Amino acid sequence: MKASRVLIDHGSGGLATKELIEKIFLKRLSNRYLSRLEDSAVLDGKSSGRIALTTDSYVVDPIFFPGGDIGSLSVHGTINDLAMQGARPVALTLGLILEEGLLMEELEQVATSIASASLDAGVPVVTADTKVVPCGKADKIFINTSGIGMVPEGISLGADRARPGDVVLVSGFIGDHGAAIMTSRANLSFSSGINSDSAPLHRLVERLLDRCPGNEMRLFRDPTRGGLATVLNEIAQASRVRIAIDEGAIPVRAEVISICELLGLDPLYLANEGKLVTVAARECADQALEAMKETEEGKHAAIIGEIMEVKKAPGPRVTIKTGIGGTRIVSMLAGEPLPRIC
Amino acid sequence: MKASRVLIDHGSGGLATKELIEKIFLKRLSNRYLSRLEDSAVLDGKSSGRIALTTDSYVVDPIFFPGGDIGSLSVHGTINDLAMQGARPVALTLGLILEEGLLMEELEQVATSIASASLDAGVPVVTADTKVVPCGKADKIFINTSGIGMVPEGISLGADRARPGDVVLVSGFIGDHGAAIMTSRANLSFSSGINSDSAPLHRLVERLLDRCPGNEMRLFRDPTRGGLATVLNEIAQASRVRIAIDEGAIPVRAEVISICELLGLDPLYLANEGKLVTVAARECADQALEAMKETEEGKHAAIIGEIMEVKKAPGPRVTIKTGIGGTRIVSMLAGEPLPRIC
Repeated sequence: MKASRVLIDHGSGGLATKELIEKIFLKRLSNRYLSRLEDSAVLDGKSSGRIALTTDSYVVDPIFFPGGDIGSLSVHGTINDLAMQGARPVALTLGLILEEGLLMEELEQVATSIASASLDAGVPVVTADTKVVPCGKADKIFINTSGIGMVPEGISLGADRARPGDVVLVSGFIGDHGAAIMTSRANLSFSSGINSDSAPLHRLVERLLDRCPGNEMRLFRDPTRGGLATVLNEIAQASRVRIAIDEGAIPVRAEVISICELLGLDPLYLANEGKLVTVAARECADQALEAMKETEEGKHAAIIGEIMEVKKAPGPRVTIKTGIGGTRIVSMLAGEPLPRIC
Repeated sequence: MKASRVLIDHGSGGLATKELIEKIFLKRLSNRYLSRLEDSAVLDGKSSGRIALTTDSYVVDPIFFPGGDIGSLSVHGTINDLAMQGARPVALTLGLILEEGLLMEELEQVATSIASASLDAGVPVVTADTKVVPCGKADKIFINTSGIGMVPEGISLGADRARPGDVVLVSGFIGDHGAAIMTSRANLSFSSGINSDSAPLHRLVERLLDRCPGNEMRLFRDPTRGGLATVLNEIAQASRVRIAIDEGAIPVRAEVISICELLGLDPLYLANEGKLVTVAARECADQALEAMKETEEGKHAAIIGEIMEVKKAPGPRVTIKTGIGGTRIVSMLAGEPLPRIC
């Protein structure tokens, strides 16, 4: 591979594609499924339980940012989408759209990052596809990762399962990913020191389901695009409840608050890529909190609010008790404060 | 939805995204999985057999072409990747990357086409994701479809299973898709009358496996990018055999030959999106041919060659007996004669 950039030929499906795949991807991601280079991967062993299936395309800009890159993000994000349904992630697919002219070195770096995230999470990439479009028809690299997982017997989760009296928890500091992307894009003259929180959450979910095994965990959601506020609104709508949040209880880093004040944004709407929101039955809330705090990814977890009955108009909603004692309604994100956050 | 174009806001993950998904996609694609709008779909019922998993990104240009569009193509292509492993397609995922400014009318047309192809094939889209990138950072619409299928017990297929004495078959006219895209892109001053062959092949595969149930069907491949020549080379390499093809036996439309002569291309390297290549044990070859000919998608099927032992250098290869009696080696596609064919 003498070319130091991706060429249109690399997307031909012929020799150049084969070379690209072998030298960049198979070298790093090799496993018995991917190495066969068939049209699809056939997984060994019989499956048990129900199958969970998810897909996500990643178009984050810039492709490298503090705390991660588009490669690790695409692995973590898809694993998390499976985990939020209580599924144990089994395998990932990798669909690459490369812009002609992309530096081969950057592609290698992304491939290394995918391999490392996949290995670390214990979820292999079993099948892949590569396309190349002419310069100016994409932006460096777009990645789609789809994934399958198995939902163990007896798991019943859903955004519609929150009940009055239940407790709302978040697994740690919110807004880190959004703030990290924003500051790396804005070319701020200072280093914010904020890293993306990009991380896989399947082990945290498994631990919570082990600790509260009787369907006390009502649902899991990862507040990505649209942030905590949007996810809470989705839960309120689906469960037909009011969610009452205590602003002071939400874990937010001081640096993130500063950046938000500087740029006129609200941490409640910033994307997260390694946090989950969960609703737990009150009798299991403390155990759930404790279970999270024992882990690296959940050590800053907190109880942030509770589920209330909807008694009158305006119906399902999210309210927040502010630091100065008032209460306001938190709406869903309407527009896009920050495009291409993931 | 007053806007007649896709806006950056439609990718926010908030209200605008919700509206786009509901009005454009759920209206057309609604099913009990997709309608839940969860992070991943959990399929009902226990699975049986082995799971096949595949992914493909579609970047075809133009997005509408004679005989199909990027929507139908993305459904057929992924179903076919599953079918080539003998899997019965179960569910699809849909990952959209939209360029800001895309006409809403065009997006609706693509969504309608996806819905129609999915319904016709009997394979639902169960989970989806939508991203929007700024104008000039993509080209109208890129689609990733991943899919899962179930491989019934006892099926054993692979590019490495061709044996000397076996017979090579193709399910119909080759090169139609490539020729259709090429002529619609070249703005030729005449209408070529060639339509893409884009079609789902899972029913054809199922029929072949029913008719020749004792592993006489060695493998299936759909000759997409790189065409028939590239697929035959992959089989020769994987099975360590020589494949001897009879040029006169390959079904090619006269219009495709004309277009190829005009543009200096070889039909053997043109993409197909509704054809399969298969290798069958000699004792089942006639039955396989007959089984294909009984179907709409296989009615122009033909036996095009046979598998030979590799006796000496240069090792595994594909040779073709030409119309005038000579024999030449057919190599894999080296470069890209036609970018963004799928």
